[in-house]
Amino acid sequence: MTASKTKRVKTSSSPLVSAHLPLRRHSGVPLYRQIYDGFRQAILGGLLRAGQRIPSTRALAAELEISRFPVLAAYEQLLHEGYLAGRIGAGTFVSGTLPDDALRPLSSTRASGRSGKPARAARPVRREPEWERSEGGLRPFRMSLPGLDQFPLAIWARLVARHARALTPALMAYGNPAGLEVLRAAVAEYLRTARAVRCEADQVIILSGSQAALRVAATALLAQGDMVAVEEPGYPGARDALRASGAELAPVPVDDQGLSVAALERLGTRVRAVYVTPSHQYPLGVSMSATRRLELLEWAERHGSWLLEDDYDSEYRYVSRPLGSLQGMDGHGRVIYIGSFSKVLFPSLRVGYLIVPRALRRGFLESREALDIFSPALSQLALADFLQEGHFARHLRRMRAVYLNRRAALLEGLARHCAGRLTVLNADGGLHAAAALPVGADDTAVVERMDRHGLTATALSSCYAGPARRAGLLLGFGGFEERRLLEASRVLGTVLRHGTD
Amino acid sequence: MTASKTKRVKTSSSPLVSAHLPLRRHSGVPLYRQIYDGFRQAILGGLLRAGQRIPSTRALAAELEISRFPVLAAYEQLLHEGYLAGRIGAGTFVSGTLPDDALRPLSSTRASGRSGKPARAARPVRREPEWERSEGGLRPFRMSLPGLDQFPLAIWARLVARHARALTPALMAYGNPAGLEVLRAAVAEYLRTARAVRCEADQVIILSGSQAALRVAATALLAQGDMVAVEEPGYPGARDALRASGAELAPVPVDDQGLSVAALERLGTRVRAVYVTPSHQYPLGVSMSATRRLELLEWAERHGSWLLEDDYDSEYRYVSRPLGSLQGMDGHGRVIYIGSFSKVLFPSLRVGYLIVPRALRRGFLESREALDIFSPALSQLALADFLQEGHFARHLRRMRAVYLNRRAALLEGLARHCAGRLTVLNADGGLHAAAALPVGADDTAVVERMDRHGLTATALSSCYAGPARRAGLLLGFGGFEERRLLEASRVLGTVLRHGTD
Repeated sequence: MTASKTKRVKTSSSPLVSAHLPLRRHSGVPLYRQIYDGFRQAILGGLLRAGQRIPSTRALAAELEISRFPVLAAYEQLLHEGYLAGRIGAGTFVSGTLPDDALRPLSSTRASGRSGKPARAARPVRREPEWERSEGGLRPFRMSLPGLDQFPLAIWARLVARHARALTPALMAYGNPAGLEVLRAAVAEYLRTARAVRCEADQVIILSGSQAALRVAATALLAQGDMVAVEEPGYPGARDALRASGAELAPVPVDDQGLSVAALERLGTRVRAVYVTPSHQYPLGVSMSATRRLELLEWAERHGSWLLEDDYDSEYRYVSRPLGSLQGMDGHGRVIYIGSFSKVLFPSLRVGYLIVPRALRRGFLESREALDIFSPALSQLALADFLQEGHFARHLRRMRAVYLNRRAALLEGLARHCAGRLTVLNADGGLHAAAALPVGADDTAVVERMDRHGLTATALSSCYAGPARRAGLLLGFGGFEERRLLEASRVLGTVLRHGTD
Repeated sequence: MTASKTKRVKTSSSPLVSAHLPLRRHSGVPLYRQIYDGFRQAILGGLLRAGQRIPSTRALAAELEISRFPVLAAYEQLLHEGYLAGRIGAGTFVSGTLPDDALRPLSSTRASGRSGKPARAARPVRREPEWERSEGGLRPFRMSLPGLDQFPLAIWARLVARHARALTPALMAYGNPAGLEVLRAAVAEYLRTARAVRCEADQVIILSGSQAALRVAATALLAQGDMVAVEEPGYPGARDALRASGAELAPVPVDDQGLSVAALERLGTRVRAVYVTPSHQYPLGVSMSATRRLELLEWAERHGSWLLEDDYDSEYRYVSRPLGSLQGMDGHGRVIYIGSFSKVLFPSLRVGYLIVPRALRRGFLESREALDIFSPALSQLALADFLQEGHFARHLRRMRAVYLNRRAALLEGLARHCAGRLTVLNADGGLHAAAALPVGADDTAVVERMDRHGLTATALSSCYAGPARRAGLLLGFGGFEERRLLEASRVLGTVLRHGTD
């Protein structure tokens, strides 16, 4: 379903077509003929399409700064030959059916490129399935999906509309690579208060999310081929970002206290940075113990290495009190703190942040500018208000209760329908449960069977950089109502029992 | 000016402070004492600030899932000692003045980090000048600044508000790394029509602008240390992006027909890609001749190299008809086309695009996903409507007339006030004029003097990767009314005449 099929393109202002009409005034070729050739080639070459409006003769003559006569003559010829349709003066369009001689090779090479091959009218292109229309992105048990049905959209839309109307030239122009101060101050206050992050507004860098944050950190801190330790199993998106930045990855196992610092020690002195998710390990859900945190900070200080703390999903814990951030325990400025509003508000907002030690600020800002200069102003302004007016704290508080119920529904559904075939490893926090399949199970095959039954899940094995040590399923519950989770668990039970369908 | 100074933070919903209160129930330390200690350390450590609201005893007890009595006891003690102010039940705040004993070292290490050094209340931080408040970003002759005063903000705000209210969960969730199809289709149609780019919607990748486009292209096409030829002089932002991606840069001189393909040939076979601005060379303004374009395409085909065409500012030409894109002349899929809405709409929109040959699409999408996953939904939706409803074509057409007048004002002002001291090299298109200073002049010093007189300009020498061959000024005219440009030219004349102030 392309846009052109669903909705007639209405250009009440006529399109700009002069790129197809590079007129040469003293070439000996009459102007009307040059205009005719330009349109004919653009139509045969597929650059102007059936049904597309073209300018009036008056508008085109004005645009080309020529008299209207050669334009009229060219349009008449194009209408006569069937390239254009409509009546002069009432709106002229590219014809839906090309004239018979359209398939003979063109003499000019402009539209057909240097190859000399005849230009073809562009064939319709097979469209790939689209996220925006596919249900796959919103099916149970899709990971990392917040309860979007619960988002206070009316409040958000009001803030966005208020700021959109009031944009000043200063806010529309190029902005600060660090982000708007009003948002940085609000983020810093939130993180000090809720996550015990030690920071001021000048340490905050606003960007589009944790993926961009890792790219910026890698450019600022690493040389090509530097080694970065990552959790094993760990977050594949982080590995992609670090690899794209030229880092060499060293997987380090995770145990029930989080990343193993003993295993990190064995890697020796080459490790320049560690990517770590201490609040809620991705994917296993472990919260790093206080002892392990202190060991890790001590290791970083001793090696002069950096800790990239991705504090994703930390806002939601159901079993024990939330722990403060690793950053808040760091006395030596070794921690770069990464957070995002994707899961506490909504992913397509695309706002996240870095908190950087002051000594690194300049390098990080240069690296952030080289990534994509700065972040859109409108979402920053609306978000600052959303934080400052208390909507954010209220939303978080409300979602804790919502997620507590959704989590309970998932656990109840799994206990009822999947007992003996799936063991919940951890659902203490965040928006997903990690669950183990029996030893030797093929979790990728299970995920494929689930897909055929209308369920989306992530195979635990896909989170390993090296050989998978464990088979399991990561089951997101944040985005789905209780009834839907219970029903989906029933379907999952069927899928697990009939392993060969 | 921090947000906390300008505007009292109103959290009608109380903040979440439990990160500071990791209660241990069986530790032998009474709960009220743990709560007291947690607050005291968070206040002394600067994580909770003077004037900041804290939860009611009832809310905190609920959050911690404990009885209200230990919370009441802790609050009473904190009020008594002056850490908190207010009346229980009526709103409690962190006190503006800390008690006398606040400076004695803390016994606990949590708030002070591993170092054992006493925690200090955070010092006020010196704020750096802010883009959003500085006039420097909006003064004549700032480069790359469109006529923001002329932007149809009411229409834009209406489209944004319409889509913000109507966001569905599918549009709020994770989206397509290529961008929304409705926008890709509209961009493809615009580019085919107005820039003679040969493309379909499936070749379009939406991202935040040309900087991000270069990062994505570099990750998709280049290996570490691959050589990329850049125009000399050229766009410093492109050099930054390519360098941050690990490319080695080879400057290639530009003559009056554009980038010298002869000089490119002399670099041999190591050049994997060329960054080029054929429509309007940055900074000199030259439009690459048709002959040179064909030579460049032939060179790329022969070497199996890639051409990164940055078609910035191509929409505005004042002297001759706009040339179509280099991409439209390419018969072998060697051109990656880069464009942005920053200068035709406004920079803080942060929407740009890549047009990639089909054979490269998959690699580019992976590389785009590793950059920052996908682009915000709201701006894509509003922009698609802006294009499809004809507002974009109308705006472009109107701005051509506006810029033609502004350009005339600048040229008139320079002729009147700067004759003999500044020679306009090119103002045939785009939003700036390139002008030469006399041989031997120090253009950086001129720019600094201009700054002291309230003018912003870019030194031509800053656009050279190697030693500057020419001294000059790049004078943006797009963002300023005629009267202001005439007046600024008068001031510039004074600056140039009195070279030693």
